[in-house]
Amino acid sequence: MFREKIKVLDCTIRDGGLVNNHDFDERFVREVYKAISASGVDYMEMGYKNSKKLFSEKEFGKWKFCDDEDIKKATDGIESKTKISVMVDVGRVDIDDVKPKSQSPVDMIRVATYVKDIDKAIFLVNHFAEKGYETTVNIMAITKALDNELTEALHQLENECKAKVIYIVDSFGFLYQETTELLVKKYKSILKTKEVGMHAHNNQQLGFSNTIEAIIHNANYLDATIYGLGRAAGNCPLELLIGFLKNPKFDIRPILDVISKEFIPLRNKIEWGYIIPHAITGMFNEHPRTAMAMRKTDKKDDYRAFYDTFTGPALD
Amino acid sequence: MFREKIKVLDCTIRDGGLVNNHDFDERFVREVYKAISASGVDYMEMGYKNSKKLFSEKEFGKWKFCDDEDIKKATDGIESKTKISVMVDVGRVDIDDVKPKSQSPVDMIRVATYVKDIDKAIFLVNHFAEKGYETTVNIMAITKALDNELTEALHQLENECKAKVIYIVDSFGFLYQETTELLVKKYKSILKTKEVGMHAHNNQQLGFSNTIEAIIHNANYLDATIYGLGRAAGNCPLELLIGFLKNPKFDIRPILDVISKEFIPLRNKIEWGYIIPHAITGMFNEHPRTAMAMRKTDKKDDYRAFYDTFTGPALD
Repeated sequence: MFREKIKVLDCTIRDGGLVNNHDFDERFVREVYKAISASGVDYMEMGYKNSKKLFSEKEFGKWKFCDDEDIKKATDGIESKTKISVMVDVGRVDIDDVKPKSQSPVDMIRVATYVKDIDKAIFLVNHFAEKGYETTVNIMAITKALDNELTEALHQLENECKAKVIYIVDSFGFLYQETTELLVKKYKSILKTKEVGMHAHNNQQLGFSNTIEAIIHNANYLDATIYGLGRAAGNCPLELLIGFLKNPKFDIRPILDVISKEFIPLRNKIEWGYIIPHAITGMFNEHPRTAMAMRKTDKKDDYRAFYDTFTGPALD
Repeated sequence: MFREKIKVLDCTIRDGGLVNNHDFDERFVREVYKAISASGVDYMEMGYKNSKKLFSEKEFGKWKFCDDEDIKKATDGIESKTKISVMVDVGRVDIDDVKPKSQSPVDMIRVATYVKDIDKAIFLVNHFAEKGYETTVNIMAITKALDNELTEALHQLENECKAKVIYIVDSFGFLYQETTELLVKKYKSILKTKEVGMHAHNNQQLGFSNTIEAIIHNANYLDATIYGLGRAAGNCPLELLIGFLKNPKFDIRPILDVISKEFIPLRNKIEWGYIIPHAITGMFNEHPRTAMAMRKTDKKDDYRAFYDTFTGPALD
């Protein structure tokens, strides 16, 4: 029943870090790493590898920078076959911070990019690949990409880029199954030598469904997060994905344990999930930043007024 | 872009009544009816029409019985084009309680049944149809139905039953898009003279997605509830469905208003939605009653132990 080629990547700490400025303490990250390892998930993404010249260590937690030493400390002594991933953003990484793979605990570097920056992303990927890392390109805000520009970018990726996986990133939680199907088929039609990945956001409770849809159409790299933790509405919940996949190498029970012990208490401290303003930005294919901002005001439950901010006078 | 034949039925008070013994006060029901009416939703279901000989008025609120007088009071003076629906369960209704349509505020009676009771359901439907009501048959626990028995039941419904709509009811929240597609196509292939309806539960965050899938394959009657209120994990959220449908007759804003004012406070008093034990019963295609029971104990967040109750020694 199961498809051997499917790989699951947990990005709880990385996408969840967008909720708390990447400030998870080492104990928490170790508990997540233990659960991910015990559940047989293929990859765990720790955070971003951002340049300390661009971001202050006073403002952000350590998972904004993902020093090799911090990763080693958080994983030390835990039995695991799970590979370690970090993400870099185009324009925010200093490539000299990245040592050759042979000297690092990191296995995979994922380059997040908009379509317009695809040339820069290809440069970064090829650089990291030459240093020995597995690499992916994650095309963000895919639902804002113009079709002709996406086509050109995908051809470039197929022809010029060493990444083994190219991701669809539904940054705004706007996709549903028909639009997901179209995108996966488009990717597959151009990316003959690469795998397709799916990173779904859950604004409209469609993160898991869109991930299933991507599986149906032969995407093999699947992102998810424990209890859906992630920016704004969060992500495809890992526990649902593991419950759905039939590969006996996966065990849902360590994930259930860590939800009970760590994520239920955490949800009382920080906010993510199905919250109406995030559903609204998803419906309008908009960045969640406006919703995240209004949730910090005393109008945080004034949903109609927030909705109306998207339906103002027509543009010229 | 929109499909004229699509009808949306709000069953917030009916399915939500399964969380609180149908004990919504009249003020709350009026606020919901105002919002549903203002949003242009086609039907609103008020509750069950159960026999008072079988259930005590001391134990249950008035929406367990749906007296015509209570419906009149809850809707009196509110401008509305929304039709009123009530549900009956096979074996729990006294047909003499149901007056002819001309004397009742009710427009539609929906008969909930298991496949095994289809003959009784057909008797009830034909009786209510003769009294002048619109009628539907809602086949519960569809994911437990044996394929050959479902085939036979659908042929009977097509040939012997006056209901204009036959529903797929995913009572356990087990379906995903491929299984939903198969069921809708099966229904459509046999029910040549009837419409197909979809009633989805949200255990695995697939309620909205399965409803979209049913739309794609030409189901035209769609159930949803405000903020997903309903038994256990709840239902397809009405606000997401209205946000998705393109028919300009719908207005999401009154729904957003009533969520802000009524459903956010209500959620602090009663529990529904994405809760791990409900996800687990969904994964195992099981009734939510065990999860609802464990949520009332001091082990309510012991998810792994609950999961393991479904994975015991093999049956003979």
